[in-house]
Amino acid sequence: MADEVLARDLLHDARTLIAEREWAKVVVLVASLHPADLIDLVLSLDEDDRRALLDQLPTDIVAQLFEFVDDDELRNLIRSVGIEDLPAVLEEVEDDVAADVIQQLEPAEAIETLAALDRADEVAELMQYGMESAGGIMRRGFVALNEGITVGQAIDYLRVLRPPSEKAYYLYVVDDDARLRGIISIRDLLVSSPRTLLSEITDHEVHAVTTETDQEEAARVLQRYNLLAVPVVDAEGRLEGVTTADDLIDVMQEEATEDMYRLAGIHEEETILSPVRQSLRRRIPWLILNLMTAFTVAAIITPFENTIERAALLAVFMPIIAGHSGNTGTQVATLVVRGLALNQVEGRDFRLIIRKEIAFGLVHGLLAGLLAAGLALVISGNGWLALVVLTALLLNVLVAGLVGSAVPLLLRRLGADPAVSSIWLTTFTDMFGFLLLLGLGTLLIDRLS
Amino acid sequence: MADEVLARDLLHDARTLIAEREWAKVVVLVASLHPADLIDLVLSLDEDDRRALLDQLPTDIVAQLFEFVDDDELRNLIRSVGIEDLPAVLEEVEDDVAADVIQQLEPAEAIETLAALDRADEVAELMQYGMESAGGIMRRGFVALNEGITVGQAIDYLRVLRPPSEKAYYLYVVDDDARLRGIISIRDLLVSSPRTLLSEITDHEVHAVTTETDQEEAARVLQRYNLLAVPVVDAEGRLEGVTTADDLIDVMQEEATEDMYRLAGIHEEETILSPVRQSLRRRIPWLILNLMTAFTVAAIITPFENTIERAALLAVFMPIIAGHSGNTGTQVATLVVRGLALNQVEGRDFRLIIRKEIAFGLVHGLLAGLLAAGLALVISGNGWLALVVLTALLLNVLVAGLVGSAVPLLLRRLGADPAVSSIWLTTFTDMFGFLLLLGLGTLLIDRLS
Repeated sequence: MADEVLARDLLHDARTLIAEREWAKVVVLVASLHPADLIDLVLSLDEDDRRALLDQLPTDIVAQLFEFVDDDELRNLIRSVGIEDLPAVLEEVEDDVAADVIQQLEPAEAIETLAALDRADEVAELMQYGMESAGGIMRRGFVALNEGITVGQAIDYLRVLRPPSEKAYYLYVVDDDARLRGIISIRDLLVSSPRTLLSEITDHEVHAVTTETDQEEAARVLQRYNLLAVPVVDAEGRLEGVTTADDLIDVMQEEATEDMYRLAGIHEEETILSPVRQSLRRRIPWLILNLMTAFTVAAIITPFENTIERAALLAVFMPIIAGHSGNTGTQVATLVVRGLALNQVEGRDFRLIIRKEIAFGLVHGLLAGLLAAGLALVISGNGWLALVVLTALLLNVLVAGLVGSAVPLLLRRLGADPAVSSIWLTTFTDMFGFLLLLGLGTLLIDRLS
Repeated sequence: MADEVLARDLLHDARTLIAEREWAKVVVLVASLHPADLIDLVLSLDEDDRRALLDQLPTDIVAQLFEFVDDDELRNLIRSVGIEDLPAVLEEVEDDVAADVIQQLEPAEAIETLAALDRADEVAELMQYGMESAGGIMRRGFVALNEGITVGQAIDYLRVLRPPSEKAYYLYVVDDDARLRGIISIRDLLVSSPRTLLSEITDHEVHAVTTETDQEEAARVLQRYNLLAVPVVDAEGRLEGVTTADDLIDVMQEEATEDMYRLAGIHEEETILSPVRQSLRRRIPWLILNLMTAFTVAAIITPFENTIERAALLAVFMPIIAGHSGNTGTQVATLVVRGLALNQVEGRDFRLIIRKEIAFGLVHGLLAGLLAAGLALVISGNGWLALVVLTALLLNVLVAGLVGSAVPLLLRRLGADPAVSSIWLTTFTDMFGFLLLLGLGTLLIDRLS
């Protein structure tokens, strides 16, 4: 807590000094901030102040900002640094970060920036992997040791190498063809006799992924086996890089956000603090589409205008049947989407889940239908209305559960994202529910009015 | 991929051998499985086979299962191991895992099991912290070095100590009162001269949390600063334990699941594969409550029966006004809930967000209202109906955005969970929307019919 107050005071001082263009003082003050805090300060400034501050900061501090910036703010940071200063900054970041930055640029600028780098080859190599693949987020700063050397030789090698990455928690053991054989922890190295061969203390049970593996799968491997890093190999099993927990945690959080947003029909780059113009641009198209589906639902009702005129009480039960089934379907879809994301569910559980949702839907539909039918009896004293309400709610609830579980599972089987927007589910349950209620009402209209 | 096929074959063989009670072969086969895979096999067996298998497995393998079991399966595992065998197993797990297990037991069994442990004191100490606090998930297996010793002394100490935890990636530096002073990586130790004092190579910028800190906050610190572990200190700053990335990743995932489930009104322990009886018990109470709110919404409509009889077209626009506003509110609530979880948003952004949602709601409401009014004109040719639809949709969309953003923010300010269920939001927007549409319709009924 004391830390947080201190940090807030520091930030306040920094803002004042930036406004007064007291650069010498600003740089001293800012040097004591963690890059994760500094990036927040930088992004909170207006465009002019931000550019001015970045101009004043040493290149290595600017470079660190690129390691801590969120994906959605990366473009803003690049713009403020300026394309002409970018190569100097990128020389100081890790290869995978440089590749991410260059992939955000216009093609012409990307080629120019890449060419200006000393490590153009290494960075270009990383750029060949899909942004969402393990290859796209892996780091090169791993340490590989040949299984044929001794512990003593390995320690001497590490002393000379001084591995530059803070991320070298695992040491990887490879054979003469650079194929991954296993891992050793630095701790094991430290506590073993110097004459021991690495092959004797190598842990061969290593969970690797390939460069083509989806980054989410790499995150799942990390979480499943309680690891801090997952090595990445090529098709021949040669060690190409390492994905680390800090990057994979971001993948997991993005994935969870994406699923939540997709269920609610929100653009993945949207945040509640996005400027209102941006939000309008991102949310309005979806909302208008949503409105159009509501129009379709309304179109289902229009032909029943006469039925509603003769039995207006049916309108009272419309929101009950639509709303309750919509919620039922959304619940089931959320359970399936999350279950798939956490690997609790697989495509082959399809039959099991459908069977379960039929049983669940029958019990739940009957219970809810009887309650709603009771309400209909109390309001109208008309047993036929109660029967219509019972039948419509029972069937619609049952269908909502089936559609809500089947659609995400089918999407996954087709290789698509299972996080179906609940808007399509509720559109469907609305339409089906109104058709049932008003259709049955029309058939029995002489008993209802 | 080849690994996965192999693992599946292994599991199939294991199941066959278990069914045949070929224990000697089962134990050999199972010993080659990672505990994360073995736990899946164990949990997939029926109660009898599970008990029989656990009886045959060596205690240290059973103990490892407790490190990899999910929270919601922990109770099943405890039951299958059996209360009488539990103390022997708990002797082999880490203190924090033992504390978690004992906290799942009935009070009498908990006391008995705790008393049977050699390390009863250490485990009991951990049990004093809230299950959701950093103290509740921290591990004791950290290595603390006094800042006054040299690198050579530290290495000798580590060789003798052979730190038992695979989690000892950071070495913590403390002063004479055991207060946390900073961290050193084993790598730094390895590459520094043996005569260097630890205080000279200590990184003092360390992000610690206290034992009372919420576990989610610890996870946020880990993610924000790209760490692999976050140290936990007591009120005096003394190092008490360490929370590691693997545990904090689980916290983040549980938190994301909880938010998604709460938005959809799902019990937090529910999964799509839960047995149907369990699902009925967990989902039905909420669904019936949901149905009751739908009844309340219906109660809003009942007094307008005459209005609907005279202008049945109003019923066509009911689902448009209710559904569209409900989706708008749910979107905003999802954005705020996720923003709060990811620390993008804080309570003090309240005014900013409300101002934005007013601007957004006016533009969006006017646009959606005009489109819906256009539809009303096309269907009915009645300008008054169009005006009623425009006004009701504009106002209801605006209010949905304000309620959807304000409620989670207010809940957070009150210290409650901001993940308000969208059911309450849609109940509110349904009721408000029907009141607007049918109320205005009643006022203008002579123009509409």
